[in-house]
Amino acid sequence: MISLRPIGYVVGLLVLALGAAMLLPALIDLPTEAGASGTFALSSVVTMMAGLTLILSCANSRTRGLDIRQTFLLTVACWLSLPIFGAIPLWTGPVPVSYTDAFFEAMSGLTTTGSTIYSDLDQLSRGTLLWRALLQWMGGVGIIVFALAFLPMLKVGGMQLFRSEAFDTFGKILPRAAEIAGSISGIYLVLTLACALSYGAAGMGLFDAITHAMTTVATGGFANYNNSFAAFTPAAEYMAAIFMILASLPFVRYIQLVAGAHQPLFHDSQIRAFLAILAGAVLVLALWQTAVSEQPTEPAFRKALFNATSIMTGTGYASANYNLWGSFPVAVIFLIGLIGGCAGSTCCSVKVFRFQLLFAALVSQIRQLHSPSGVFRPRYEGRTVADDVMSSVVAFFVMFMLTLGVVTAILGLMGLDMITALSGAATAVANIGPGLGPEIGPAGNFAGLPDQAKWVLAMAMLIGRLELMSVYVLFTVAFWRG
Amino acid sequence: MISLRPIGYVVGLLVLALGAAMLLPALIDLPTEAGASGTFALSSVVTMMAGLTLILSCANSRTRGLDIRQTFLLTVACWLSLPIFGAIPLWTGPVPVSYTDAFFEAMSGLTTTGSTIYSDLDQLSRGTLLWRALLQWMGGVGIIVFALAFLPMLKVGGMQLFRSEAFDTFGKILPRAAEIAGSISGIYLVLTLACALSYGAAGMGLFDAITHAMTTVATGGFANYNNSFAAFTPAAEYMAAIFMILASLPFVRYIQLVAGAHQPLFHDSQIRAFLAILAGAVLVLALWQTAVSEQPTEPAFRKALFNATSIMTGTGYASANYNLWGSFPVAVIFLIGLIGGCAGSTCCSVKVFRFQLLFAALVSQIRQLHSPSGVFRPRYEGRTVADDVMSSVVAFFVMFMLTLGVVTAILGLMGLDMITALSGAATAVANIGPGLGPEIGPAGNFAGLPDQAKWVLAMAMLIGRLELMSVYVLFTVAFWRG
Ligand SMILES: [K+]
Ligand SMILES: [K+]
Repeated sequence: MISLRPIGYVVGLLVLALGAAMLLPALIDLPTEAGASGTFALSSVVTMMAGLTLILSCANSRTRGLDIRQTFLLTVACWLSLPIFGAIPLWTGPVPVSYTDAFFEAMSGLTTTGSTIYSDLDQLSRGTLLWRALLQWMGGVGIIVFALAFLPMLKVGGMQLFRSEAFDTFGKILPRAAEIAGSISGIYLVLTLACALSYGAAGMGLFDAITHAMTTVATGGFANYNNSFAAFTPAAEYMAAIFMILASLPFVRYIQLVAGAHQPLFHDSQIRAFLAILAGAVLVLALWQTAVSEQPTEPAFRKALFNATSIMTGTGYASANYNLWGSFPVAVIFLIGLIGGCAGSTCCSVKVFRFQLLFAALVSQIRQLHSPSGVFRPRYEGRTVADDVMSSVVAFFVMFMLTLGVVTAILGLMGLDMITALSGAATAVANIGPGLGPEIGPAGNFAGLPDQAKWVLAMAMLIGRLELMSVYVLFTVAFWRG
Repeated sequence: MISLRPIGYVVGLLVLALGAAMLLPALIDLPTEAGASGTFALSSVVTMMAGLTLILSCANSRTRGLDIRQTFLLTVACWLSLPIFGAIPLWTGPVPVSYTDAFFEAMSGLTTTGSTIYSDLDQLSRGTLLWRALLQWMGGVGIIVFALAFLPMLKVGGMQLFRSEAFDTFGKILPRAAEIAGSISGIYLVLTLACALSYGAAGMGLFDAITHAMTTVATGGFANYNNSFAAFTPAAEYMAAIFMILASLPFVRYIQLVAGAHQPLFHDSQIRAFLAILAGAVLVLALWQTAVSEQPTEPAFRKALFNATSIMTGTGYASANYNLWGSFPVAVIFLIGLIGGCAGSTCCSVKVFRFQLLFAALVSQIRQLHSPSGVFRPRYEGRTVADDVMSSVVAFFVMFMLTLGVVTAILGLMGLDMITALSGAATAVANIGPGLGPEIGPAGNFAGLPDQAKWVLAMAMLIGRLELMSVYVLFTVAFWRG
C-alpha cells in the first residue's frame, strides 16, 4: 500500500496557501460595490479550512521523504486539487458561470494554458482578473520547481539530462524542492517586477501592468481585455515579446548568472536553438505579411514578433487575429506552438531540447550511413546521450502524438469540427491557450463548447503540463501493485 | 572521387532487362490492331540499346564489389533510370500522354505506389495494362532484394535489426544481392501463380487474373478497370485480401518455411502485430458500417476487410469509395496507411517493426519511471535493441514527418487544397496509391494535378520507397567529400 498521509499533508499545505492567496482579490475588490470581495473572502475561508483539515488529519505521520510512487501521486494530486478549490470564487462570483466553466478556467490558469471560458472579460471585477493572473503566476513558479526538483529524479521525458546541473546536491525530494523554490522565487519575482515596470513605461495602468506581468512571466496568457494585447501600445507589445522570451529560458541559467557565471547562459545550446527557431519564424511571418499581404514593415514585423513569440513560448496572448493571415502563416504558427520553449522554464509543449535530441539522433544516423562499420551515438551539448534519455524522449513523443490523437478523436465524436477538435487538443496538451478556427481561435473563446469537451480539455491540460508520463504512470498496473 | 563505372555497369544491366521485358507487351498487343505493339517493340529496342551502351562503356572496370557510397548511388541511380526508360512506351503509345504523365506512371509502377494518371483505363490496350502490371511486379521483387541485401548492411532506418537473419553469410554486396534475388524469385513466382489461379477460380478472365496477381503480390495496386476491384466478384475480393496479406509478410520467413522451419513464420512478433492491427481496423470499420451506416453484415465485413487490407498493405486497390464512409472511417484508413506492413516484404510506409520499437521504448520508459535507479533498455523479440537501431528508427520518423510536411507545403503552395496536398504527400511517400478527397481519392486519379506537382509526387515516391535516408544521404556534404 502507498501511504497517502504524507501526500495529503503536502497537498493540505498548498491548499492552505491557495486559500490565503484568495485574500488578495478580496482586498482589491473591497472598494467596488459590484466587486466579488465577499465571494473571495468566503472562498478563502472554505479553502483554508479544507487545507487545515487535510494538514491536521495527516500531520501525525512525520514526512520522512517520499518514495517514487508517492512523488508521482503527489504531483497529480496537487495539480488536481488546486483547481478544484481555485474554481470556487469564480463559480460563486458575481458573474455567473457553471462549476464546469470555473474548473476549466482554474485548470487553464494553474497549468498556465490561458484558454478562457469568459466571453466578455470587460465585465469581470478587478478581483476576478487578479485571481486569474494569480492562478497563472503561482502555476508558473510551481511548474519550474516541478521541472527542476521532480522531473529529473523521476526520469520523465528525458529530463534526467538536466539532473546534475546547478542543483547537484542529492537530498530528499521535498527539502530539495523547497531549496529550489527558494532560489527560483527571487528571480521569478524580479522578472515579474521588471516586466510590470516596463509595461508601466509603455503606457499601461498599474493594475494592468501588474496582472499582465504575472501572466507574461508565467507564459500564461490570461488577459484583462477581450481583444487581449491589441488593447495596448506597440511599445507594450515589444516589451511583452522580450519578457515572454526571458520567461522561456531555463531558470537555472539565471541562478548561475546571479552567482556570477554568465558562461552557462550564453553557451546553452537549447537557448540558441530556441532563439534561432523563433527568429526564423518571425522572419518568415514578417516577410509573408509585407510581401503577400502588403502590410507596412513596422507593424508587420511587430505583429509577427509578438504573435510568433506568444505562441512559441506558449503564452497565448494575441495582438492580431492571425487566423486571417492565410493558411501558410497559420501552419507556421501551429507548428512552432508544438515546439515550445526551453526545459526548466515556465514554458510548456514539447520543448526545444527534445527536438535537439531527435536531431542528434538524425545526425548520428547520417554518420552511421557514411561508415556503417563505425558506431555513432547521438550527442547533446558535447556529451553522448545516454540510452535511457533517448528512449524517454521517444516515449514522450509517442505519448504526445497518441494523446493528441485520442483527445482530437474524443472531441470529434462530441461533434466539434475537425479544426476545432485538433487545434483544441493541441492547445490544451501543449498548454498554449488559443486554438484555431472561428470558435476557439485568437478572436474566440471556449465558452460555447459542450461541458464534456471542457472536462476533456481540462484533463488534457493537466496531462500536458505534467509532461504526460507523470500522469500516465498512475494508470499502469505495476504502479499500484509494486 | 567516387568511381561511377561499376554503378553504370549494373544500371546498364537492369535497363537492358527492362528493355527485354517490353517485348512481352509487344507480343500481347500483336493480334489487336489498335494495340501498342509497335510502340513497345520500338521502345524495347531503344531501351536495350541504351542499356548495352551503358554496359559496354563501363565494362572495362571489373566490379570488385561496391563500397558504401557506390551502393547508395547505385540504389538511387537504378530507381531513377528505370522509370525514365519505363515511361517511353507509355509516352509514345496510342493513348497520348505527356512525358511528365508517363514518368509519373512508370515511377508509380516501379515503386509499387499505384497512383495513376489515366482517367480512363478502359481505353488502354492489353499491352499497356500488362506493362503497368509488369512495372509493379518487377519493382516489387526489386524492393524485397533491396530490403534484404542492401538496407541491413547500409544500416538504414533500423533495418540492421534484420541483418543476421537467414542470410548471415557476409559477402560482397552484389553477389549477396544476386543470391538473395535467386531465393526470393522462386517464392515470388509461386505466390503470383497461386494468386492468379485463385483469381481465375473466383471468376476473373485469364488476362485480368495474371495482371492483377502481379499487382497484388507486389502490393502495387494498378488495376485494369476504372472501378478497380469493384469490377470483380466478392470471392475475388476475399482472395485479394488473402494474397495482399501474404505479400506483406517478411519473405525471409517463406524461405525458412520452404527449408522446413515453420517456427520463424508463426513466432514472428512483427507478423503478429501486423495481423492484430489489421484485424482491429477491419473490426472497427465493419462495426461502423453495420451500426452507423446500417449496411448488411456480409458486404460490410467484406468491404472493410478488402479496403483496410488494401490500404494498410499499401496496395491501394479500392472496391468502394471509402471517402464517403464518414470522417471517422476515413481517419482510420489514413492512419493504418501510415503503419504499413512488415519489413522485408513488398510493403512500404513506416512498417510495423518501427512502431514496435517505439512501443518498446515506451515500455522501457514506464519501467524506468517505476524504479528510476534501474536501467531499462528497449527490447524487441527478446533481445535488447542496440542504440544505433533506436536512433536509426528515430531518424526515420523525423525524416518521414519532415518529408510529409515539406511535400505537403510544396503541393499547398502549388495551389492544391489541404486534403489533396496532405493525402497526396502521404500516399506518395508511403507508396500507397490513392489519396483522400474527390480529386485523388479512391474514385479519382492524378491526371488533373499540375505538372510540377506530378514531378514532386514522383520524387516523393522514390524517396519513400528507398526508406528516405538512402536518398537523403546523397545530399550531405560528407558523402561527396568523404
Ligand atoms: K499559455
Ligand atoms: K501501392
